[in-house]
Amino acid sequence: MSDVDEQLQVLTHGAAQVEPYEEFEHKVRQAAAGQRPPLRVKFGIDPTSTDIHLGHSVVLRKLADFQRFGHTAVLIIGGFTAQVGDPSGRSKTRPRLSPEQVTANARTYLEQVRMVLLDEPLEIVDNRDWLEGLTLAEVLGLTSQMTVARMLERADFAERYASGIPIAISEFLYPLLQARDSVAVRADVELGGTDQTFNLLAGRGVQQAAGQVPQCVLTMPLIEGLDGSAKMSKSLGNAIGITDEPADMYGKAMRLRDELIIKYLRLTTAVAPDEVDDVHARLADGRLHPRDAKRRLARELVTLYHSAEAAQAAQERFDVQFRDRGVPEDIPTVVLDRDRWFLPSLLQAAELVTSGSEARRMVAQGAVRLDGTVIGDATAEYELADLDGRVIQVGKRRFARLQAAAMDDQRTPHNR
Amino acid sequence: MSDVDEQLQVLTHGAAQVEPYEEFEHKVRQAAAGQRPPLRVKFGIDPTSTDIHLGHSVVLRKLADFQRFGHTAVLIIGGFTAQVGDPSGRSKTRPRLSPEQVTANARTYLEQVRMVLLDEPLEIVDNRDWLEGLTLAEVLGLTSQMTVARMLERADFAERYASGIPIAISEFLYPLLQARDSVAVRADVELGGTDQTFNLLAGRGVQQAAGQVPQCVLTMPLIEGLDGSAKMSKSLGNAIGITDEPADMYGKAMRLRDELIIKYLRLTTAVAPDEVDDVHARLADGRLHPRDAKRRLARELVTLYHSAEAAQAAQERFDVQFRDRGVPEDIPTVVLDRDRWFLPSLLQAAELVTSGSEARRMVAQGAVRLDGTVIGDATAEYELADLDGRVIQVGKRRFARLQAAAMDDQRTPHNR
Repeated sequence: MSDVDEQLQVLTHGAAQVEPYEEFEHKVRQAAAGQRPPLRVKFGIDPTSTDIHLGHSVVLRKLADFQRFGHTAVLIIGGFTAQVGDPSGRSKTRPRLSPEQVTANARTYLEQVRMVLLDEPLEIVDNRDWLEGLTLAEVLGLTSQMTVARMLERADFAERYASGIPIAISEFLYPLLQARDSVAVRADVELGGTDQTFNLLAGRGVQQAAGQVPQCVLTMPLIEGLDGSAKMSKSLGNAIGITDEPADMYGKAMRLRDELIIKYLRLTTAVAPDEVDDVHARLADGRLHPRDAKRRLARELVTLYHSAEAAQAAQERFDVQFRDRGVPEDIPTVVLDRDRWFLPSLLQAAELVTSGSEARRMVAQGAVRLDGTVIGDATAEYELADLDGRVIQVGKRRFARLQAAAMDDQRTPHNR
Repeated sequence: MSDVDEQLQVLTHGAAQVEPYEEFEHKVRQAAAGQRPPLRVKFGIDPTSTDIHLGHSVVLRKLADFQRFGHTAVLIIGGFTAQVGDPSGRSKTRPRLSPEQVTANARTYLEQVRMVLLDEPLEIVDNRDWLEGLTLAEVLGLTSQMTVARMLERADFAERYASGIPIAISEFLYPLLQARDSVAVRADVELGGTDQTFNLLAGRGVQQAAGQVPQCVLTMPLIEGLDGSAKMSKSLGNAIGITDEPADMYGKAMRLRDELIIKYLRLTTAVAPDEVDDVHARLADGRLHPRDAKRRLARELVTLYHSAEAAQAAQERFDVQFRDRGVPEDIPTVVLDRDRWFLPSLLQAAELVTSGSEARRMVAQGAVRLDGTVIGDATAEYELADLDGRVIQVGKRRFARLQAAAMDDQRTPHNR
């Protein structure tokens, strides 16, 4: 296999769609042959989110793949839209942020992004630079590039329109503004989740109208939360944050639903495609136990975001806490949203008892344990931080893993 | 009847809709009682048209009614939209004009407007002054004021959407930009044709969002062309221009379809409402012949735009040309679109003969007349200007009225 064939294979590995593929291949081959500069690969993020989880990492890791072949990652901070917010007040996903908040969020976000991306080639730009000064005549030019009917084909708009849920006309502008970003950075390729396909393709038309060669679009699959639910969200307790502590990251990975193991291995770790295929085959014919595949996944993730040593330590701690003591690995997680907890209310919140009196009775019987240690005082009180990540237990069969709620929900940064 | 009751009666006379009427009445009464300044009455025009016909005069005359009671006519020249045009190139009614064309058109247009409006109170403004500098953030604020579903209720959009005819998203912006004009001029009332109802009402929401008391909307009926067709257009030969020469104006009025006499009398002349009602009653029971009602209408129009003397002279000339010579009054008009005409082609264009040889035969027989004068030379040639307004005749029963085509079609200035 030639170098460029290998490059094409790596760049498109795991992608949901490369559109149009022929153009993409042509650009990559030209760049590889030195007949054109390296590709400018755009990825847009809204600075409404600060914490990056594995869901976000999928596209970022793909962007890093491009960097490894010498292509330029062009990261666009959506500073403009974040400041405008949704003027109709309808959209919860488009809060209005102050310039200071935008800057602060962007800083935190970028610190985490750098855990995935290479230091170069990398350009980081803010769309305030070109959108703030856009004139009305330019907006009209931009909005003349797309029809109402076409915009209403976008799945979420189609659904809302059919259900009679209001769509503000301003919402029709956002995809075009994002498309305008592609013109500003002269993108050759744009990356995004599959939920962004419509918006990404819109960039092609707008670039063409501006006299540019239209970008190619490469979308990555969205990954489900650990529990298999469509939305990965820190506050739902089904996400792994890339800044999670090793033990936490390892423990969460071990709770992944079996049917998602391969998808996670392929899209969120550095395991080579061939090896993932091998794990897949061995899982399918029973040579490999799902628990062991998850141990591999958990180790890979901790290694990726911390170190091999941290991964080893996390695995040992996990084994002590769960496997060696017979605690099942798939116990439910309970998200706690108060700062302080009395033991009886904690047991009730965890649904391990049905009343305060049952809680007190169980404590009196010595049946209540926190990380394996019996708690004898029914009036015990805990700070939220002290409970996060621990396992509470009533009797021999009732367990819950405790997790502190995030202060606010995190949305997908690349879901603009 | 009190003065203010009379004012309300005059202002709403002939209107298709006053919305909401209670607010309108309240504003007029407050102004009459000196509890608020005179009303600011907005009328927006696109400077794509230069010639004003009776269709346009309907709203302008209503605007003059407001001036007569001391209210301020606020005339908005749509200089911005005329310069932007329709960037999608789809709309023929939104050509792109240069700043010079806008200025030139506006000048010609205003000269004619002043034939209808009083010199004061009158403000003339150009929306370039506030639209050119609109920021993207302001555009987003504006477009968040209305939903896609509501915009698609507008009759023309609904029809196009249902028929699969493309609507550019930019077209959704124009009604909101016009609404934004109402904020800029702090309109208390906006006037327009009934085809503008949706756009005018949009101004209310946008004003409210800007913290202003929303304008009331007063719409006037659209009048059909002389031939009864929906579109009054100079190039279709079914319009009376307010700058038409007396004889031309008189002659055109005499060709009006009978069923439109009352509508024209009421909406395009200074005849008092009571008198129009009287004419209506006498036409209905046969006491008045439609021809005599039209003579009245024709005289009123020439008096309005020229003088009573000119009206008298036009009537006399018409009588000589038609009534006294037995030429029917309802002969067809032929619009001529070439600069020079040979007699045989003219006769063919007028559909008075079916071939060149028939034309020459008729000339040889002395059967061809121009304004009653026999033309004996089949090789005669005419300049277009010499034919305009004349009657050509073959034999005793075949007539046509000749009219020079306008160089380009004129659209309703208030149809923005």
